[in-house]
Amino acid sequence: MSKKLRVGILGATGMVGQRFIQLLENHPQFEITALAASDRSQGKSFQEACTWRLAGEMPAFVKSMTVAAPEPPLDCELVFSSLPGEGGLARESEGAFARAGFPVISNSSAYRMEADVPLLIPEVNHEHLALLDVQRKTHGGKGFIVTNPNCSTIMLALALAPLHAKFGVQSVVATTMQALSGAGYPGVPSLAISDNVLPFIDGEEEKIEQETLKILGKLQGAEIEAAPMAVSAQCHRVNVSDGHMAAVRVKLDRAVGIEDVKNALSSFTALPQELQLHSAPKYPIIVREEPDRPQSRLDRDAANGMSVSVGRILPDNVLDYRFVALSHNTIRGAAGAAILNAELLIAIGILKQE
Amino acid sequence: MSKKLRVGILGATGMVGQRFIQLLENHPQFEITALAASDRSQGKSFQEACTWRLAGEMPAFVKSMTVAAPEPPLDCELVFSSLPGEGGLARESEGAFARAGFPVISNSSAYRMEADVPLLIPEVNHEHLALLDVQRKTHGGKGFIVTNPNCSTIMLALALAPLHAKFGVQSVVATTMQALSGAGYPGVPSLAISDNVLPFIDGEEEKIEQETLKILGKLQGAEIEAAPMAVSAQCHRVNVSDGHMAAVRVKLDRAVGIEDVKNALSSFTALPQELQLHSAPKYPIIVREEPDRPQSRLDRDAANGMSVSVGRILPDNVLDYRFVALSHNTIRGAAGAAILNAELLIAIGILKQE
Amino acid sequence: MSKKLRVGILGATGMVGQRFIQLLENHPQFEITALAASDRSQGKSFQEACTWRLAGEMPAFVKSMTVAAPEPPLDCELVFSSLPGEGGLARESEGAFARAGFPVISNSSAYRMEADVPLLIPEVNHEHLALLDVQRKTHGGKGFIVTNPNCSTIMLALALAPLHAKFGVQSVVATTMQALSGAGYPGVPSLAISDNVLPFIDGEEEKIEQETLKILGKLQGAEIEAAPMAVSAQCHRVNVSDGHMAAVRVKLDRAVGIEDVKNALSSFTALPQELQLHSAPKYPIIVREEPDRPQSRLDRDAANGMSVSVGRILPDNVLDYRFVALSHNTIRGAAGAAILNAELLIAIGILKQE
Amino acid sequence: MSKKLRVGILGATGMVGQRFIQLLENHPQFEITALAASDRSQGKSFQEACTWRLAGEMPAFVKSMTVAAPEPPLDCELVFSSLPGEGGLARESEGAFARAGFPVISNSSAYRMEADVPLLIPEVNHEHLALLDVQRKTHGGKGFIVTNPNCSTIMLALALAPLHAKFGVQSVVATTMQALSGAGYPGVPSLAISDNVLPFIDGEEEKIEQETLKILGKLQGAEIEAAPMAVSAQCHRVNVSDGHMAAVRVKLDRAVGIEDVKNALSSFTALPQELQLHSAPKYPIIVREEPDRPQSRLDRDAANGMSVSVGRILPDNVLDYRFVALSHNTIRGAAGAAILNAELLIAIGILKQE
Repeated sequence: MSKKLRVGILGATGMVGQRFIQLLENHPQFEITALAASDRSQGKSFQEACTWRLAGEMPAFVKSMTVAAPEPPLDCELVFSSLPGEGGLARESEGAFARAGFPVISNSSAYRMEADVPLLIPEVNHEHLALLDVQRKTHGGKGFIVTNPNCSTIMLALALAPLHAKFGVQSVVATTMQALSGAGYPGVPSLAISDNVLPFIDGEEEKIEQETLKILGKLQGAEIEAAPMAVSAQCHRVNVSDGHMAAVRVKLDRAVGIEDVKNALSSFTALPQELQLHSAPKYPIIVREEPDRPQSRLDRDAANGMSVSVGRILPDNVLDYRFVALSHNTIRGAAGAAILNAELLIAIGILKQE
Repeated sequence: MSKKLRVGILGATGMVGQRFIQLLENHPQFEITALAASDRSQGKSFQEACTWRLAGEMPAFVKSMTVAAPEPPLDCELVFSSLPGEGGLARESEGAFARAGFPVISNSSAYRMEADVPLLIPEVNHEHLALLDVQRKTHGGKGFIVTNPNCSTIMLALALAPLHAKFGVQSVVATTMQALSGAGYPGVPSLAISDNVLPFIDGEEEKIEQETLKILGKLQGAEIEAAPMAVSAQCHRVNVSDGHMAAVRVKLDRAVGIEDVKNALSSFTALPQELQLHSAPKYPIIVREEPDRPQSRLDRDAANGMSVSVGRILPDNVLDYRFVALSHNTIRGAAGAAILNAELLIAIGILKQE
Repeated sequence: MSKKLRVGILGATGMVGQRFIQLLENHPQFEITALAASDRSQGKSFQEACTWRLAGEMPAFVKSMTVAAPEPPLDCELVFSSLPGEGGLARESEGAFARAGFPVISNSSAYRMEADVPLLIPEVNHEHLALLDVQRKTHGGKGFIVTNPNCSTIMLALALAPLHAKFGVQSVVATTMQALSGAGYPGVPSLAISDNVLPFIDGEEEKIEQETLKILGKLQGAEIEAAPMAVSAQCHRVNVSDGHMAAVRVKLDRAVGIEDVKNALSSFTALPQELQLHSAPKYPIIVREEPDRPQSRLDRDAANGMSVSVGRILPDNVLDYRFVALSHNTIRGAAGAAILNAELLIAIGILKQE
Repeated sequence: MSKKLRVGILGATGMVGQRFIQLLENHPQFEITALAASDRSQGKSFQEACTWRLAGEMPAFVKSMTVAAPEPPLDCELVFSSLPGEGGLARESEGAFARAGFPVISNSSAYRMEADVPLLIPEVNHEHLALLDVQRKTHGGKGFIVTNPNCSTIMLALALAPLHAKFGVQSVVATTMQALSGAGYPGVPSLAISDNVLPFIDGEEEKIEQETLKILGKLQGAEIEAAPMAVSAQCHRVNVSDGHMAAVRVKLDRAVGIEDVKNALSSFTALPQELQLHSAPKYPIIVREEPDRPQSRLDRDAANGMSVSVGRILPDNVLDYRFVALSHNTIRGAAGAAILNAELLIAIGILKQE
């Protein structure tokens, strides 16, 4: 058995940072050797710096680690980043790590739409990793940046991928009902969401509308050509702790029966399943036939939070089909997505365990 | 000043029945003289039969009234009905009252889609009241049935009405986030909705898709011709006490600027405003410019729960425009809707205060 | 009719500040002529500076008022303060206003336990206003400070007052379940309270245990002698927007029947009722006989939020009696309390309307 | 390794019944061979009869089992019962099973207070199992009934046990904030608990006040002598899915330092720990030092839901000490309690695996 890759977590004290720690605690391929955060916690032990907000106790192995600044070098071979995309910190920090020779596996929005940065979902567009050659040519060195999509976009793009591959997706109308953990901590004030729905999440509709086109786009030479489809997103915050839901309508390029749609989704597997990546769910998409599923609380943890649950697949009066999708926004939608990305990079030899 | 009309409430102990009582307590044109319910409460005083579930106290004047069976005759000149549409009771009871000569102003779904029954929103389709002539010819007698739409449909149809009148609506995609009170009491178990979203409300999507076409349809001779548009509805239950929200996209018959859309909505008034009906809001549609409105808790009580709040009016990538609508589901969406219907019937002489 | 007193609000943008504005909008004795806040909002219009968080719209009359610093002088005859008690700002600001000759009617904790500052509940201890003579002697000038208790303490002290007056209270065990609005805005993060109870509110147990003794204490010469009782408080935050609940046990000085306890509470009225102060409820304490009342949502608005509802009065196995109390924490527990204090000061001539 | 005991579940479709199935799915000593329920589900497959309400999927092995009536005989060697204590069904059914020779390990309230029925918490009062001799003498046969306490009582009695053993508990004042799952399904309507606290749970205060005395009582000959202490309970339902919290004050028989109290709790272990029973937590009581713990969501799953978390241990002004306790109401408070009881019965030879 090969040695574990030594990883650093940028943004380790936040909600997604804590998920990274939780998911990596017993991971066979990675061990956390550095923790960094952007705030006043630098120089403190992680136990002092971080109030653990996930169920269960803070894993013992991180308690006495010292929180560093999110600047290279760190004592590790690659970094996972969940630095906030807003405000420039992620852009600056991740760029610095890449230039300093570190592979950066980022959940941040900072570099997602850069022309030479893969916006990766291993089941959907692993061929986009060819962009790393472009990065290498431009910047030289061993460092690079691979990003994963926004927490709602991942779910949507995963559910669309098999439909687009088989039938062609012409247009998509997605309406999300998103969980509180998507806003981090402290995030949404309780008085704002108590007995309420908020019809606005800053920047979210734009992210879904743009990222989806890149993810489902085709690699043409050294560039991603955006998928030729129209995407409409309306985003809402609802009083749910974890689990983003989306009501989706799709118009396909050609007429297709509802059983074909269901089969395309339920039978979908891809490279991560073939390679049996550690975090890869057996079925990326779980199709449910009950009339009242998926539900946020009941389905968010499907396949340890890595599967997207899809239900209520029905013909639609305006577009062709509609369905409801749900997935765990801080696992498949954030930390778990980045870890699966790194697992793929190991499996295909881009990251090397010595 | 004319004498108040004496009214009976069918389904008086339910959530909508209680709203009827609350809204009629100090109404200038109606006084409640009879209460009927479908359950074991018959023969009891209302105070014994009913656990009051609205904020504030049960109005004193109903406490000692005896709950009757929902069968004619009742000691009143007209009945408001909030009997449940499912299971046949509303159909039987309302039909019996109409045949017995009572005007029936119903919030139930039982007769909404009948060809000779107006599905009335006073601001939208008062000309549909011509169907009452058909009812009279068919059944004879003084009794008749007027219905109001489903709680989500009212909001949607009101918001669409000025757009359809001015620009023509070709298709509508509506995704609802509906309140708990829409399911009545006991309704949704707390364990079912705690930290959860339910993507299914039995019969709701069909009601929205069908009723909207009738409401926005044209009276052709003695019939309503369904509006020539496509409506798609996906419905969800969220953890909010009162206030239904809908994320809506519309495709219009012709190109139109966003300011025209906003103006059409914000300047919309109709017959109820002209006649200054007691429950009519000054503006049926309130357009909000803040990026994060409307919100369920903050906007449901606009104009005493009778206005629909619309915000986030934006161009859409797939259809033409999108917006978020919100209204109070048991006021404008149920009891208040029925009362406004009755107020219109008085104002135009169909119901007579002696 | 006399001219309205011109008042300034310190801390106008906060949750309690907004309640002050809402409650004073149509008040017959006060008009708001100045708004001050401690934050970056100074110099802005109130509309720009403040996001309105109460149901309904921001009252029109405050929208264009400019937010000042909470420093004297302000264009007003007295100030209501809801500055935060922590961090020294309230202490500094209120002291400065008093020294500058302004009556300060404060909801802050800064001066509550000062020996010469009345901790006033008009129904309970108006004789404590004699302390204002002490203030005047010490500091000179026309300015003074009158405070109202902590939001939970008010409810508890009001419920204890008639029992203490009639039977003597020897010890009190109170366990609170407090609303989110008590923590202000943004206050409690939604992720902290979702599907949760928090057993800790910083400083709250101490405030209840200390303030109760002062409020129920006796004026002896120029001092308040603490009431000779023991008070135990355990405080919890629950997922409720408004309305603090307390489960209370009391041990009395002498044996007394349960009907005597109920009567003492339900028949309790005092000077504010006699003087018919504008905000005084007809009954400061409403005794409920239903087994499942009071409830936060159903009872918090009793008497416009100014009455304390008490139910489940029962013999107790360890102390003598137990009951459950509930009141609105930002009305009777904060802004409404301060306004009632000011109304009393007018009625007894300490504040003068010219 | 010995054969697994074959068990039947009475009340298998309810919330606690589902917990039994979940906890027994991979249990080394028990296998479920019969499912019974009191309702219309008899004769159906469990999959048809039961809507699975716990997170995750219904375990595959129960799906095709047929639901029987809760009447002997069933194809099993012992029964676990979670039949409702109210209405007489549990009393009748459990009595019949015992008379028919089945050991009955019951979570129901029906027989808890019977003089010859052990009300068992394995860490607290295993010597009460001597009552089974009394049962055997009275009724003959191999059948018997062992019960576990009410979900709140277990937590309270466990936390009191080491204090009572070491210092003597004279009086207890407990105020509970209980979860929704304690009321079963459908249980509490969402409209009843939304933005609310309910100060009433039918029969709960009495159960806590009575059962605690029996559990902590001493076996004197063939009888349990109630513990000589006074217990006061006030019970509230709060908007939390799982996890009962109690704010507790205790008066001890003698003066004792706070560190002694903490040590008594944190060091407490008993027979189940010694015998290393499968479901026994390493520490029945986990003492937390953070000022804001225990919390319902964060601590309910401690030791797989089998430990009671205790925090905020402080001196009290009225009694001697106070603290906050929390445990999982359907695991340690119900299904897990019964299973631990059965594990103890095996370990000490009362139940025999062949």
